[in-house]
Amino acid sequence: MSARFLVIGGDAAGATAAAHVNRAVPDAEVVIVEQQAYTSYSACGIPFYVGGDLDHATDLVARSPQQHRAAGIVVHTQTRADRIDVDRRVVHVTDLVTGRPREEPFDLLCYAAGAHPRLPDDVPGLRDFGMPVQTLDEGERLRAELERRPVERVAVLGGGYIGIEVAEALVRHGIHATIIDRHDALMQTLDPDMAGPLHERLRDFGCDLRLGEQVLAVESTDGRCQAVRTSGGRIAADVVVVAIGSRPRTWLAEDAGLKLGPSGAVATDERLRTSADGVWAAGDCAESTHLLTGAKVNIQLGTHANKHGKVVGIDVAARLNGDGDGDATFPGVVGTAVTKLCDLEVGRTGLSEREAHAAGFDFAAARFVGTAKSGYLPDPGEVHVKLLAERGTGRVLGAQMVGTGNVAKRIDVAATWCHLGVTVQDAQMLDLSYAPPFGGTWDLLQVGARKLVRQLGLSPQL
Amino acid sequence: MSARFLVIGGDAAGATAAAHVNRAVPDAEVVIVEQQAYTSYSACGIPFYVGGDLDHATDLVARSPQQHRAAGIVVHTQTRADRIDVDRRVVHVTDLVTGRPREEPFDLLCYAAGAHPRLPDDVPGLRDFGMPVQTLDEGERLRAELERRPVERVAVLGGGYIGIEVAEALVRHGIHATIIDRHDALMQTLDPDMAGPLHERLRDFGCDLRLGEQVLAVESTDGRCQAVRTSGGRIAADVVVVAIGSRPRTWLAEDAGLKLGPSGAVATDERLRTSADGVWAAGDCAESTHLLTGAKVNIQLGTHANKHGKVVGIDVAARLNGDGDGDATFPGVVGTAVTKLCDLEVGRTGLSEREAHAAGFDFAAARFVGTAKSGYLPDPGEVHVKLLAERGTGRVLGAQMVGTGNVAKRIDVAATWCHLGVTVQDAQMLDLSYAPPFGGTWDLLQVGARKLVRQLGLSPQL
Repeated sequence: MSARFLVIGGDAAGATAAAHVNRAVPDAEVVIVEQQAYTSYSACGIPFYVGGDLDHATDLVARSPQQHRAAGIVVHTQTRADRIDVDRRVVHVTDLVTGRPREEPFDLLCYAAGAHPRLPDDVPGLRDFGMPVQTLDEGERLRAELERRPVERVAVLGGGYIGIEVAEALVRHGIHATIIDRHDALMQTLDPDMAGPLHERLRDFGCDLRLGEQVLAVESTDGRCQAVRTSGGRIAADVVVVAIGSRPRTWLAEDAGLKLGPSGAVATDERLRTSADGVWAAGDCAESTHLLTGAKVNIQLGTHANKHGKVVGIDVAARLNGDGDGDATFPGVVGTAVTKLCDLEVGRTGLSEREAHAAGFDFAAARFVGTAKSGYLPDPGEVHVKLLAERGTGRVLGAQMVGTGNVAKRIDVAATWCHLGVTVQDAQMLDLSYAPPFGGTWDLLQVGARKLVRQLGLSPQL
Repeated sequence: MSARFLVIGGDAAGATAAAHVNRAVPDAEVVIVEQQAYTSYSACGIPFYVGGDLDHATDLVARSPQQHRAAGIVVHTQTRADRIDVDRRVVHVTDLVTGRPREEPFDLLCYAAGAHPRLPDDVPGLRDFGMPVQTLDEGERLRAELERRPVERVAVLGGGYIGIEVAEALVRHGIHATIIDRHDALMQTLDPDMAGPLHERLRDFGCDLRLGEQVLAVESTDGRCQAVRTSGGRIAADVVVVAIGSRPRTWLAEDAGLKLGPSGAVATDERLRTSADGVWAAGDCAESTHLLTGAKVNIQLGTHANKHGKVVGIDVAARLNGDGDGDATFPGVVGTAVTKLCDLEVGRTGLSEREAHAAGFDFAAARFVGTAKSGYLPDPGEVHVKLLAERGTGRVLGAQMVGTGNVAKRIDVAATWCHLGVTVQDAQMLDLSYAPPFGGTWDLLQVGARKLVRQLGLSPQL
């Protein structure tokens, strides 16, 4: 009898693992159980769909259930996993269409249940009217709501990546948006002193910001949302979008006795194996190692989910083929993330000052404003830069950039530095590109590296 | 008596060295001898000035002679160095305004004489009518020529970076431009199969291309340029721009007995010291080590010139201060270069296939076309990618990219890989950024890395 590899969750991590095993172990039976109607879609694209840049939710689907099936994978969509019985090697599931429960047996299991949006139940009305945008189903519901009736004002709770992206998309399509955040600055993944240009750009673009305000209630009349009441006042709103973060969806795993890690996500080793033999975890529900702090972290991003899925697929295939350990390991993450806001690109990698302090690093930070193009060109643009390096060693600890012009991929240069332990002394000498449309002869990151070499009293000081 | 540090050439390399020594050794006498009227300008910006994006040539000057003087440096502009007498420690110079020769003594010398444009004298008429755009003086002459009389048609000889940039600038300002190149593809720093999108974009933009044609003569009537005659025909031209490369300006150094290296530029060690004690060479006239081949190369770029100048300044200052060797060394280059053509960005780093073959590497190349944004977004753009890695080790040997969307700084990621010896196995696992406006979950360079891992039979194959 062929081995059965069961995957809970058919998005980036789970579907990737399934597809790999399906290719690498032809006689394995590969089965995906997925709660939604979709598999393998771009969650990061949801704001673009909500805002109307895309016509159909399915535009975001990279690989549909039908496509997975055509490749030989069994895919049960709209099927919820209710309980994992590790000893009996079955997952109890419910067909959400018929309501009928059944068991799905497995030899090996990948738990890739993703994350669920935070939706606090101590804010009156929020559970009733707050609309998350975590999954494509949720994105569809929000867009349907926007199209169903004239929506003039939307309150977006949470000023992180998703909140900002949704707000921009709404404003761009003629809907008035207000971002409400309890912090005094948007984007807590940046240091507060980097958020200023974001605030300015959003306000210039026509988006209202209510910062440092606590959401107290969502008010309604006759079952229709009317406003959000905050510690700072009342904000009229026909629709309330909730984008205040998400939590790894761990309760099934926990219930099954899988160990959770310090981040609250499922604990895994470098092959994404959990504490239970023959059970892996991958994607938003799993932990990774932060390469700069060594700490276990839960960073929910499609990039990590894809790589996790590959590593799991390789390890599962090796196990099924009797090859011992899979030859892929997931080295860890450095916290790279980027987004775009109008013409402004926002990127970060490594540790923020806040994080570096918390991790106990002795470091210096260089903070400056440069131009995106050579200063003598028309409209040279502006890039806010912050670079961090460790005292003594000069190792690059993090970078943040906000501005026009190539910020996202500049951040990848710094990400590579953080990942590989490059020092500011070496970084300043790298053969990085230069042409007037892309900056000055010293790349902005190298300008930062030079500043840090001086600040830290390292050598050579160019 | 204070020591005298003399610098021949007051642009990126020379002026940087002078400024460093001037700051680091307050009692040194620092003197620059510069043939032109300008110091410290952006040669890369000349096409933008010629094309009219900038009003004044001085917009390109980062630090004028007056500014250098205000900092305490003696600057002799319009002063030509004629002969270096290393034994007597003097440079024979001529004041180009008065025509008067004199001697400039030195204790330590930096030779930063730059490069001179190739202007073959076996093409009739070329010496008379061909206008190079190597220096700001030459840029000024060309722009004056374009403004002096109605110029309708310009022939640009040479389809490298400068030729393409000048041609685009001309077309953008309503002048008909034809690029003539003896090769079948533009940009010999790219492999020929990467040049296709460039050809297409230039032609779409209205620029004529005459590829694979030898220039035979420049024809004139009554002292006015009329046409360029090539092996392929006759191209009407009011002005002929010459951008067929440049050579390190070495004859003064050679005449003084300084050793030249295999590249034809002045031979230097890692502190840019020449074969003569107390004499350094820096910038376009000096050699660097190619970090992938170990060969000595002469790559004329402002980025290297600036770093060279710093390393020289630090070494000279250490010598003057009695500190032994300067603590900065120039590690070498990997051949990074970028440019912009309309909305197309063009970048390369490391070795092209041609170069990798010539250097005797056993390697594989991945060549593919990806999108600049996530494929589901409107106008996702197109990026042509080529990545090279060494067989056996998997070490990244080079990258070329042509397309819309962040190519220039993506190339810097690959440049860092080439510089640090990163393998495709490791590269595919780096925590690089992702958001839909900037590409897919696997960065284009990581897509290439994954392809190469498979092509080379390395592990893990994600």
